[in-house]
Amino acid sequence: MQKILVLNGPNLNLLGTREPGVYGTKSLADIEADLRARFDGRAAIDFRQTNREGQLVDWIQEAGLSDVPVALNAGAYTHTSIAIRDAIAGAKAIVVEVHLSNIHAREDFRHRSFIAGVCRGVVAGFGPLSYALAVEALLVD
Amino acid sequence: MQKILVLNGPNLNLLGTREPGVYGTKSLADIEADLRARFDGRAAIDFRQTNREGQLVDWIQEAGLSDVPVALNAGAYTHTSIAIRDAIAGAKAIVVEVHLSNIHAREDFRHRSFIAGVCRGVVAGFGPLSYALAVEALLVD
Amino acid sequence: MQKILVLNGPNLNLLGTREPGVYGTKSLADIEADLRARFDGRAAIDFRQTNREGQLVDWIQEAGLSDVPVALNAGAYTHTSIAIRDAIAGAKAIVVEVHLSNIHAREDFRHRSFIAGVCRGVVAGFGPLSYALAVEALLVD
Amino acid sequence: MQKILVLNGPNLNLLGTREPGVYGTKSLADIEADLRARFDGRAAIDFRQTNREGQLVDWIQEAGLSDVPVALNAGAYTHTSIAIRDAIAGAKAIVVEVHLSNIHAREDFRHRSFIAGVCRGVVAGFGPLSYALAVEALLVD
Amino acid sequence: MQKILVLNGPNLNLLGTREPGVYGTKSLADIEADLRARFDGRAAIDFRQTNREGQLVDWIQEAGLSDVPVALNAGAYTHTSIAIRDAIAGAKAIVVEVHLSNIHAREDFRHRSFIAGVCRGVVAGFGPLSYALAVEALLVD
Amino acid sequence: MQKILVLNGPNLNLLGTREPGVYGTKSLADIEADLRARFDGRAAIDFRQTNREGQLVDWIQEAGLSDVPVALNAGAYTHTSIAIRDAIAGAKAIVVEVHLSNIHAREDFRHRSFIAGVCRGVVAGFGPLSYALAVEALLVD
Amino acid sequence: MQKILVLNGPNLNLLGTREPGVYGTKSLADIEADLRARFDGRAAIDFRQTNREGQLVDWIQEAGLSDVPVALNAGAYTHTSIAIRDAIAGAKAIVVEVHLSNIHAREDFRHRSFIAGVCRGVVAGFGPLSYALAVEALLVD
Amino acid sequence: MQKILVLNGPNLNLLGTREPGVYGTKSLADIEADLRARFDGRAAIDFRQTNREGQLVDWIQEAGLSDVPVALNAGAYTHTSIAIRDAIAGAKAIVVEVHLSNIHAREDFRHRSFIAGVCRGVVAGFGPLSYALAVEALLVD
Amino acid sequence: MQKILVLNGPNLNLLGTREPGVYGTKSLADIEADLRARFDGRAAIDFRQTNREGQLVDWIQEAGLSDVPVALNAGAYTHTSIAIRDAIAGAKAIVVEVHLSNIHAREDFRHRSFIAGVCRGVVAGFGPLSYALAVEALLVD
Amino acid sequence: MQKILVLNGPNLNLLGTREPGVYGTKSLADIEADLRARFDGRAAIDFRQTNREGQLVDWIQEAGLSDVPVALNAGAYTHTSIAIRDAIAGAKAIVVEVHLSNIHAREDFRHRSFIAGVCRGVVAGFGPLSYALAVEALLVD
Amino acid sequence: MQKILVLNGPNLNLLGTREPGVYGTKSLADIEADLRARFDGRAAIDFRQTNREGQLVDWIQEAGLSDVPVALNAGAYTHTSIAIRDAIAGAKAIVVEVHLSNIHAREDFRHRSFIAGVCRGVVAGFGPLSYALAVEALLVD
Amino acid sequence: MQKILVLNGPNLNLLGTREPGVYGTKSLADIEADLRARFDGRAAIDFRQTNREGQLVDWIQEAGLSDVPVALNAGAYTHTSIAIRDAIAGAKAIVVEVHLSNIHAREDFRHRSFIAGVCRGVVAGFGPLSYALAVEALLVD
Repeated sequence: MQKILVLNGPNLNLLGTREPGVYGTKSLADIEADLRARFDGRAAIDFRQTNREGQLVDWIQEAGLSDVPVALNAGAYTHTSIAIRDAIAGAKAIVVEVHLSNIHAREDFRHRSFIAGVCRGVVAGFGPLSYALAVEALLVD
Repeated sequence: MQKILVLNGPNLNLLGTREPGVYGTKSLADIEADLRARFDGRAAIDFRQTNREGQLVDWIQEAGLSDVPVALNAGAYTHTSIAIRDAIAGAKAIVVEVHLSNIHAREDFRHRSFIAGVCRGVVAGFGPLSYALAVEALLVD
Repeated sequence: MQKILVLNGPNLNLLGTREPGVYGTKSLADIEADLRARFDGRAAIDFRQTNREGQLVDWIQEAGLSDVPVALNAGAYTHTSIAIRDAIAGAKAIVVEVHLSNIHAREDFRHRSFIAGVCRGVVAGFGPLSYALAVEALLVD
Repeated sequence: MQKILVLNGPNLNLLGTREPGVYGTKSLADIEADLRARFDGRAAIDFRQTNREGQLVDWIQEAGLSDVPVALNAGAYTHTSIAIRDAIAGAKAIVVEVHLSNIHAREDFRHRSFIAGVCRGVVAGFGPLSYALAVEALLVD
Repeated sequence: MQKILVLNGPNLNLLGTREPGVYGTKSLADIEADLRARFDGRAAIDFRQTNREGQLVDWIQEAGLSDVPVALNAGAYTHTSIAIRDAIAGAKAIVVEVHLSNIHAREDFRHRSFIAGVCRGVVAGFGPLSYALAVEALLVD
Repeated sequence: MQKILVLNGPNLNLLGTREPGVYGTKSLADIEADLRARFDGRAAIDFRQTNREGQLVDWIQEAGLSDVPVALNAGAYTHTSIAIRDAIAGAKAIVVEVHLSNIHAREDFRHRSFIAGVCRGVVAGFGPLSYALAVEALLVD
Repeated sequence: MQKILVLNGPNLNLLGTREPGVYGTKSLADIEADLRARFDGRAAIDFRQTNREGQLVDWIQEAGLSDVPVALNAGAYTHTSIAIRDAIAGAKAIVVEVHLSNIHAREDFRHRSFIAGVCRGVVAGFGPLSYALAVEALLVD
Repeated sequence: MQKILVLNGPNLNLLGTREPGVYGTKSLADIEADLRARFDGRAAIDFRQTNREGQLVDWIQEAGLSDVPVALNAGAYTHTSIAIRDAIAGAKAIVVEVHLSNIHAREDFRHRSFIAGVCRGVVAGFGPLSYALAVEALLVD
Repeated sequence: MQKILVLNGPNLNLLGTREPGVYGTKSLADIEADLRARFDGRAAIDFRQTNREGQLVDWIQEAGLSDVPVALNAGAYTHTSIAIRDAIAGAKAIVVEVHLSNIHAREDFRHRSFIAGVCRGVVAGFGPLSYALAVEALLVD
Repeated sequence: MQKILVLNGPNLNLLGTREPGVYGTKSLADIEADLRARFDGRAAIDFRQTNREGQLVDWIQEAGLSDVPVALNAGAYTHTSIAIRDAIAGAKAIVVEVHLSNIHAREDFRHRSFIAGVCRGVVAGFGPLSYALAVEALLVD
Repeated sequence: MQKILVLNGPNLNLLGTREPGVYGTKSLADIEADLRARFDGRAAIDFRQTNREGQLVDWIQEAGLSDVPVALNAGAYTHTSIAIRDAIAGAKAIVVEVHLSNIHAREDFRHRSFIAGVCRGVVAGFGPLSYALAVEALLVD
Repeated sequence: MQKILVLNGPNLNLLGTREPGVYGTKSLADIEADLRARFDGRAAIDFRQTNREGQLVDWIQEAGLSDVPVALNAGAYTHTSIAIRDAIAGAKAIVVEVHLSNIHAREDFRHRSFIAGVCRGVVAGFGPLSYALAVEALLVD
């Protein structure tokens, strides 16, 4: 069965714990559970979160070197991390960039992604569904 | 059955007729056929193409006023058309921005989208699959 | 009687059909009717709308070549169209730029007008009254 | 009868005294007289001029606090004064920005207005008529 | 005999009708006639004009797909149209960019060409002669 | 007893008179009274307000030349006045920049301070408490 | 007793160990001791330092979720970290930004703060006293 | 005898009172005296100083309208005042811009002059001698 | 017979000696020979090359003062030399800017020409043919 | 014997494992071995790698405080980390910036180094030899 | 007698030979003669002109090393030459920047001077008189 | 024996003659002598200096065409010369960019190098040692 790594960056562990009116009531664990249910039998989901840029670099290198495709929600590091970009390119990782919100409808500094240019594609704005569509894309790819 | 409008902007009619090594061998008609097949029984796909900005404005207004969600690949107008942006916002159209290629891996002037900020979300970089994922998102929405 | 051409650009046909709380309940037809009533006997109002940039270019050329002054609400094309600017300058059209809303209180990309520099003047922010003031200015001119 | 405050900023006292070929032969006093004549019986015009930014701030505060609408030709301060912007917003003054010339057809540094964003609207480019149209707008408002 | 498509964009239909002191007394029809005379027996000139961006996209696609080289004076769309750029690149059209005036001696916003980068070359500033030199280049090419 | 000059720039005289929901119900006189009460016996507070840039320059020069430290809320002049900056530096005034609101959470043009670079420090965002903290800092300094 | 978290970012552990002429002779431990002494009986100070961006994100989340207010000297991360900004906003942490030095009197790249916009306020430039004023503000808040 | 107006802007009254090591020991009164002595019998020097932008506008208008040439050291207003620029241009004043220091060797924001473009010329960097050279130029002019 | 000066700037002497696959196998001497052959009897071609900016200035002055038109391939100096621009304008030289390659399809810093704005026109992108077209234009002019 | 710290930042652990055609076949361990061999008897090389910004800050502080010079290849953090810059400056570390590739021949965002300005010097573009030259420089220093 | 070197850069040799209506009828030789006459007995004027940047560098070095002050009209190199700047600073030359015209009233690219920041001062806009004032300043210095 | 060309650009001939405290007491001749001594028997050093951009272009062409590698300290031309860049690329010269000082610790306009992108690598900041390291790199290459 195809292994898929789902990586979550800074502050995504906060999902559902505060401001449910804004971000929805689903926690990151809920998203993980939904994803496992949806892809049950089609993909082995490895779901992780960290607030640390270097940890994301490690995980992406690991995925790239073992040819496991990645659905990556790098959160705020999307806009500031060249190190993550280099990890994707250097380890030849197959990555789909994921965002819960539509980053283009937010502050200007969220419109630039250092990561998108070395990814296969981008899925953004559909809330938890963004993850499912990204994994779908990785399975087809 | 849910009606979905799939709109294609300038030069997408060229797909498959030239440079298959770059853009793939699928024509826009092939993409339409695949999409109909995939969503057979789940969605009524209305698939159109135009090279004219004003025509896209008309179609988006029409969709918004009749509450038909739109998968929109606005092509080059993505980066230059405030009129399309205003059509989406003014007619309260439910739109997902679609791109075949990863626009972030191309020229700088393709990194800015006037349209993304008023769309539900963005799906880019997966070739014809981008369309399918966008329709998927619209059906779930 | 002085003929006046009132030209409306993209999405102005949506007026009054949606979001009356924001844009008011008046449709473009209502604005036209009010204008005719107000200038009854003083001006022959020719009132048109199009979503197409090229159509606006045609109409402005026509007006310029026949010396009919123009009240122009170019909508989103205000901010992107050098072709309309060139039509005004090339046909020596007498044009007043009109806006319903105060474009300076909106997004940054609406603060630049390619058109204003070749117009007689600008009237913006007074809702339907903007049209009346513009026609007033053209009659006095 | 509706009171209207007409405020003029720096160098507008020079009107008509030099370069009549450029700015016309009308002095600011002529403009005031024309305005009084035009709105005789409809509005009580209070017409003032100053070369001082702080004086304009004072007058706008006074107008805002007593709910007298303002036609404001802030001259060069239009492009440099955040203090005037704050006076309008802070005192909730009802202001229409007025310009004799079409500022968009002049130097680049005259294209930015700090004031327009907090005004009801803008009337520019019609010479003395700009004032009359602005007062018209304030009376209707 | 080599077929050559000569395409003219917005406002070029105004040539000769106004401001002969600036743009010369030759109309677009005169330029066409001169061109036909000059290349009589050497090239079959197909000469067209439109004020519509989408029409130019159509024509360029048509030329590219049938391997007819193009002399293109895109007028104001030179500076704003990525759609035309994509048509040239997507249809692999052989295009020479033409301008009557020296665009580098005009406003700043005319110094950027979205089109030049995908053309064979540029000829600008020689009035009607620019067209002849462009066709000359296409015949040699 | 240590003398402290508290200077307030344009529009701060409006505090409490309008929009209490936004700026609080305290007037500038209330802030002055609170400050006097809080520093009773520890500092002789000289509290002033003006809408004029030049007046602020005068007062800062006076303070610098007599070695009286200054808590300065320059309001909008913070972002536009090099003259005030030069007064502080030229008269070697000891100044703490004060703001009621968090200027970094407001419009972009309020993020630049011409004054901060020549001040001892900045206190911003705490409402009337900002003044008290600034005076505290000046007393300790 | 009110708990207060005082967080210090990269390189603040160097304080006092080198260049006392520039940064003063006080070490971070000295600052902590002074703070504890000053707020003895009024606040329970939890004082921490890290060179890691992700650690700061963790601590701020922890503080926000447990409603402990934070005095944050994020050091260099102030100017580069959107992740810390998102932690503050996402966890609804009550934060005051603190700086020992006046960052506006230093290099240009230190003038932009990604963090200030989501903080209650800013205290900068007073050396160790900046911490005390920030805690003061948090106690009053 | 030729009348010459020498105008000094904000903070120039501080000359010589502080930091003699930097700005020299000469006060503005000393500069005035030296100037009178140097041009004794050749020019009637009218020497003034103000910290107010509006006052400079008044004086320049007065000079322009009475054809008295001006040596203008506008200090910090050089870099921020369009009002002073407009006064010079509007009143057709003959003005030489003067600076004691070499503004090009100082902060970036002092490199732009709004005033220079409408002056006859500029003399900067020679300390008090700059004034003498400017008056020399005005006498020859 | 009409004299024509053909000037070549830095590095054009390298043509044909290296990378024939990129720049073609023709040397600058070949281009000169072809040009002489093509215009035999119609123009006296004076063909020169230099790597020095000042030498180009000298030659352009010489041409302008003796009314000899110039085909100028200024190479890299196109993008950096205001001195060459001033030579053309100052000596009223009739100049056509020539480039072998399409500079708009190369690095960004080659998109700006300091020279084009003072030339009659531009011919770029046609390899050695660019020279012939430029001379053609100069003969017609 | 002189101790030298050689620090490697994010993704340098990937060297040699992928894309040997691009980055060479040498792994980071090979580079370390070569370096030890080359400086055998002349320097005690302490060679480390991390993907974490904060870890680099720690190591640089440690080196600076113990006066051990550093050859630093900060990888992607070169372009984004002010924290590393501050560590070098704050701990007075003697650092030479090292790069395997010529960063100036790559993407624009790699042309800016936050670190170079506080280093002794830079060695870039020579592959593994860059390290040797940097250590050479540190030994001579 | 004090030796003074007067250096003239590119195209200044054209003075008076063309466009006397614009630049005056005086040639550079006339300016030299006037200058010698004016400073007869007070200064030994060494007057030179070159179109070459490197020649100016040589002359400035020579002047700096022999302590001869320089009046430098670097013409177009003012705006592009860091080499001349470095010559002034490196040879510790005493230089006054001179311009015939008011460069601030011309194109934007003439507003930046690489040279002014390392000169004693600037004299610009007075035609030939600019030279005399500059020499005056150098004699007093 | 390997021939190496060491090229020095503008103002490097000043080394050691002035400001020994800043640039060291070594003259360029000393650096040459040291270099010859260090590489005695390993490389034939051809050491040259010029203040002229065009001369550097000539020398680089000569080196590239005869396959002699170059250590190039282009001085100020590093930041302004596209001609030198083109010489390196056009003649396929093998070049190492050398700087005595750390250009990244100096003015902003010295941070951009037009040359680095076409060089093998860069060595900067080590004083005369920079030359030795560059030659070392060229010998290994």
